[in-house]
Amino acid sequence: MDRMTAQEMDARDPLRRVRGRFLLPEGRVYLDGNSLGALQPSVQQAAHDVLETWRAHAIGGWNRGWVELAGRTADRLAGVLGAEPDEIAVADSTSTNLFKALVAGLELRPDRHTLLVAGDDFPTDVYVASGVAELTGAQVRTVSADVLDDAIDDDVAVVLRSHVDYRTGRRVDLAEAVGRARTVGAVTVWDLSHSVGALDLQLDEWQADLAVGCSYKYLNGGPGAPAWIYAAKRHHDQLATALRGWFGHVEPFAFSSSYVPAEGARRFENGTPPILSLAALHASLEVFEQVALSEVERKAAELTDLFIRLVDVRCRDLEVVTPRAPSARAAQVSLRHPSARGLIGALSRRGVVGDHRPPDLLRFGFAPLYVGFEDVWEAVDQLADLLDSRDWEQGDADIPAGPVP
Amino acid sequence: MDRMTAQEMDARDPLRRVRGRFLLPEGRVYLDGNSLGALQPSVQQAAHDVLETWRAHAIGGWNRGWVELAGRTADRLAGVLGAEPDEIAVADSTSTNLFKALVAGLELRPDRHTLLVAGDDFPTDVYVASGVAELTGAQVRTVSADVLDDAIDDDVAVVLRSHVDYRTGRRVDLAEAVGRARTVGAVTVWDLSHSVGALDLQLDEWQADLAVGCSYKYLNGGPGAPAWIYAAKRHHDQLATALRGWFGHVEPFAFSSSYVPAEGARRFENGTPPILSLAALHASLEVFEQVALSEVERKAAELTDLFIRLVDVRCRDLEVVTPRAPSARAAQVSLRHPSARGLIGALSRRGVVGDHRPPDLLRFGFAPLYVGFEDVWEAVDQLADLLDSRDWEQGDADIPAGPVP
Repeated sequence: MDRMTAQEMDARDPLRRVRGRFLLPEGRVYLDGNSLGALQPSVQQAAHDVLETWRAHAIGGWNRGWVELAGRTADRLAGVLGAEPDEIAVADSTSTNLFKALVAGLELRPDRHTLLVAGDDFPTDVYVASGVAELTGAQVRTVSADVLDDAIDDDVAVVLRSHVDYRTGRRVDLAEAVGRARTVGAVTVWDLSHSVGALDLQLDEWQADLAVGCSYKYLNGGPGAPAWIYAAKRHHDQLATALRGWFGHVEPFAFSSSYVPAEGARRFENGTPPILSLAALHASLEVFEQVALSEVERKAAELTDLFIRLVDVRCRDLEVVTPRAPSARAAQVSLRHPSARGLIGALSRRGVVGDHRPPDLLRFGFAPLYVGFEDVWEAVDQLADLLDSRDWEQGDADIPAGPVP
Repeated sequence: MDRMTAQEMDARDPLRRVRGRFLLPEGRVYLDGNSLGALQPSVQQAAHDVLETWRAHAIGGWNRGWVELAGRTADRLAGVLGAEPDEIAVADSTSTNLFKALVAGLELRPDRHTLLVAGDDFPTDVYVASGVAELTGAQVRTVSADVLDDAIDDDVAVVLRSHVDYRTGRRVDLAEAVGRARTVGAVTVWDLSHSVGALDLQLDEWQADLAVGCSYKYLNGGPGAPAWIYAAKRHHDQLATALRGWFGHVEPFAFSSSYVPAEGARRFENGTPPILSLAALHASLEVFEQVALSEVERKAAELTDLFIRLVDVRCRDLEVVTPRAPSARAAQVSLRHPSARGLIGALSRRGVVGDHRPPDLLRFGFAPLYVGFEDVWEAVDQLADLLDSRDWEQGDADIPAGPVP
């Protein structure tokens, strides 16, 4: 196995053609698309167009596409999620949408009072659940993710889970977990931030109840891009809305004094959306109309498989934390090493961008739309050389911090 | 009174120098800044800078100013509100911030159960209050704004008010209303969307409790710009947060599993902010460091006064709905006419942009930073000529719709 083998895999890659649509950081192997996806020229253009419309037409911009923009973005996203357009709303942040979903989930099971949460999930999910509980009188029960299924009893209204663990990259079988929860009468709320855009999600087919996710990782919507929320059609008749901004009203511009929710999930649109950021997201999703999600998921499996195999052979000091079965991971691989932070910093100085999760994890994301097999080879080559040279303790100024769940 | 008089007023206007900072729609008199403020080149530049940082540094952008951007924007806004920096958070939409403020207000008066709301306020405020009530078990009591003060009894925890009525432009004496509510033990939550950036707000001095507002009107932050929330320092020790996204955590990147709120109002930052839209807002606020708010408010009074006087003389078919005392209005004047919609459409075709509120109101906003006295003269000149010609029934395709509360 050498660089040429990886180049041949790139040559055979049916997604190779879309890599050219992305403006990747120059001279770097970018393996942090699981934190912030890459920019596309169409996204630059969309932001410029909003500014130009604002300059030329000011308030008239709302009549030139802004009013419908959240809806048109949700329409595009539906295809990425395996959902119908009216099951999706694009609005707010993942945190806020999770709040809406948890409240809606509790309302679907008014005779139950427990929110069951995996305590090792992304912390903000646990924070949001605690806020919902304090407000509604529900209680949060926190257990470890690996015993979550067995902890669902007849007081559990809602089970909150991440599809993919942000640290280990472990993927839950969503359809199976939904089935188990339903057997004991619980509703599932999914955080899909780490799988949307990287896997072939089929939320309708899997009979998910409610789900949320961010748009700035594999969806490439830009830093802090508006997030989304999914609500299955069978729940639309009894879909409670905690946050009732006018964009979620059935007739926002009628200025009616009584609240009547919009159809289906669109009632979750809430307040006026941030048009610049929303237009960027809308443009970023166009690429998903050019690719089959089954190919995206297959390539995620192949990229991560190649990475794991090369690490096994060339980086013996590193423990592969992510499951080896492709169906049990997404597009991320995490490695364990006591000097994880120093290694990620040194790798960055060598042009390979991953990130670090305390205390001892190195995380690498393989965004299938723009990461190639030679990138994988190059990353492991640098990593192996770095481990041999033992020069990773020199500082970590370039280690990505910030919103990189 | 002729055009030259207006030109002389412009020549004496101390704010005349900042008009040149705005890119106004060409060939138009733009009197809809109370709906969407105008673009500045520095705002274009800020959006371009975010795109360029994203392109060149991808995830590294978070270490290049994005993490602190919401805080730095709140710092700038504090000066506009007469508040301390830690009393302000910039986040989410006005609707979502209102939800947070109402929940926090209710928690400050746990022995009371009523949210008192002016039913003729902007409808979304009433929708949001109804959502809070359903979730918390509080009740919403709706009364007319003009009897609100007398309706505060000892079960009222929170009084929700707009500082300026979005239809009539009538302004409440905020300090006086706060005092009355406090006398009967109620907390006030203010919607300042229609005064922030147009008046000399002094929230600390006026002893406001909680307030929210949008950033896309007189603050010129762009369509759907992130909104803000104010919480007085004396409440910081017991400030409940319903929405607990990680940016409101005291240490967002420590990934702690327990929620510990950030200092003061910053706990309301919630989820990951939309950086493109936020950077635009941050840039838009710089102009307020160049002007005295007392001059902004004085010019708002003079522009609206000139408009009202000219309408009185030249447009006798129009009823001035907005109060004539400058202290009882902000920077908006509303006129009544049975053909309001047709008139606004016809005016727009003549190059004067206002908007229409059903059934019979014409609204005009006089953003003091960029509207001049000759603009006022021109608008009334066109309006008078239009009324004389009676040609306003020809259609209304250009009437601004959309988010123009």
